[in-house]
Amino acid sequence: MDCINKELCIIKEGVSKNLPYQINEYGKLIRSKIGLLILKMYGVNPGEEHLKFLTAIELTHTASLHHDDVIDNETTRRNSQTINSLKGNKLSVLYGNLILTNALKIILSTDNTILTKHFNETIQDMCKGELLQNSQLYSIPSLEDYIEKSRLKTASLFKMVGLGLKILSADIPQSMIDFTENFGIGFQIKNDLDNLLTTKTDIENGIYTAPLIYSGGTKITEYGIEKTKALIDNYIQKGFTYPEKERDNQYKKELIGVMQCLKN
Amino acid sequence: MDCINKELCIIKEGVSKNLPYQINEYGKLIRSKIGLLILKMYGVNPGEEHLKFLTAIELTHTASLHHDDVIDNETTRRNSQTINSLKGNKLSVLYGNLILTNALKIILSTDNTILTKHFNETIQDMCKGELLQNSQLYSIPSLEDYIEKSRLKTASLFKMVGLGLKILSADIPQSMIDFTENFGIGFQIKNDLDNLLTTKTDIENGIYTAPLIYSGGTKITEYGIEKTKALIDNYIQKGFTYPEKERDNQYKKELIGVMQCLKN
Repeated sequence: MDCINKELCIIKEGVSKNLPYQINEYGKLIRSKIGLLILKMYGVNPGEEHLKFLTAIELTHTASLHHDDVIDNETTRRNSQTINSLKGNKLSVLYGNLILTNALKIILSTDNTILTKHFNETIQDMCKGELLQNSQLYSIPSLEDYIEKSRLKTASLFKMVGLGLKILSADIPQSMIDFTENFGIGFQIKNDLDNLLTTKTDIENGIYTAPLIYSGGTKITEYGIEKTKALIDNYIQKGFTYPEKERDNQYKKELIGVMQCLKN
Repeated sequence: MDCINKELCIIKEGVSKNLPYQINEYGKLIRSKIGLLILKMYGVNPGEEHLKFLTAIELTHTASLHHDDVIDNETTRRNSQTINSLKGNKLSVLYGNLILTNALKIILSTDNTILTKHFNETIQDMCKGELLQNSQLYSIPSLEDYIEKSRLKTASLFKMVGLGLKILSADIPQSMIDFTENFGIGFQIKNDLDNLLTTKTDIENGIYTAPLIYSGGTKITEYGIEKTKALIDNYIQKGFTYPEKERDNQYKKELIGVMQCLKN
């Protein structure tokens, strides 16, 4: 990922400056990676506004983790203890709020009203997704409700990457909005599968996801795992249809590489 | 308060439409009352933008209560059980977030960039105030730190009422920004005094406020109470100096009436 290293450094610096504490681990920065590769794939040189925007996306993601950790009683994240388990729910809620206002401040500094409105709607969709998940606890939802929850809770912020880049740069095609949204749905399903194959904290918390929906109960089956993998593949395939054939450059290859992380 | 009844009804309707649950009790709506009376005192007829703005102020206040209840483990509020004690911290955090995005959506719908930026900064100040309070827990702060915390945590949203009305209407003088901020500080000190004279939950939660600062320990003294009352009077007096003498109309009288609620 050398081709976007410089930009990722600037985004990390922006994230670090807008957190109320020191961090050593920035996470995967997958939303920024996708955003930068999309820009470069379409021949747009990432400028100050793009980097500000992607920094705000990462901050929003971080803010949502702080609140999710309170909501889901998570104790570890990115191989470290979560803020809520280290310093209590109070600080986790407050830090989440503060980081979110910092993200909005960055977005507001672009003076782009349309971008700001969509950004706020995205945060709203993320809340609605969490609320939907909360209403489904300890019951196996329909696949449709599960996908809708994943779309709102997780894919909305991925979709905002595509949408925001399109708002900022006319060269980015409409199709990138669907591409980022589909990637986001696949990303959430992959996360859910990984959880069930490792810590299984989702089951403890009453969050019953794709593998259990396919397994038809709270005991995961081989069939459930296979069907979930096929579902993820389906979202990857949807993604592959978007980046245009004529854009066969190194950035498209890198983007496909990022998408491979959804594969086992 | 008959003179602003019509406008208060519209604000209540707006609040109700933007909450994810039914409410019967709107609270005192003190921020809106002050805002409407300031407008009328200066001869401005409250229009759609003013009412939208005040609705967003009330929603932001409500959102902050949802988060504060989680932060302070409150079980009752406005004579009813709090959302966090009824439905858990999860829903309280999520509802707070959702209500806040609704408030921002209303502000964004005014297409007033300056108003939106100040609004976001206000939310940020409220977070900073809560963080400052959190850093002072179980220790008696200096009076200066206590006032600074109250200014950020509570008075910032009151100040935003004055500031927002000034941004929306040139007829509102600059002095109303200081007026609303001072009122907000007095309002918080009065709340703190009432808490120590009734439930004393602040002491349990390690929040040591003006009466204890003056008492010099966690046992409240008569001296501490008297000094706190004098401090509140001081902020009321500061307020009284602002509404201009020539504005001696019924609205000024009503505004002074609202300020009397800070008196015992």
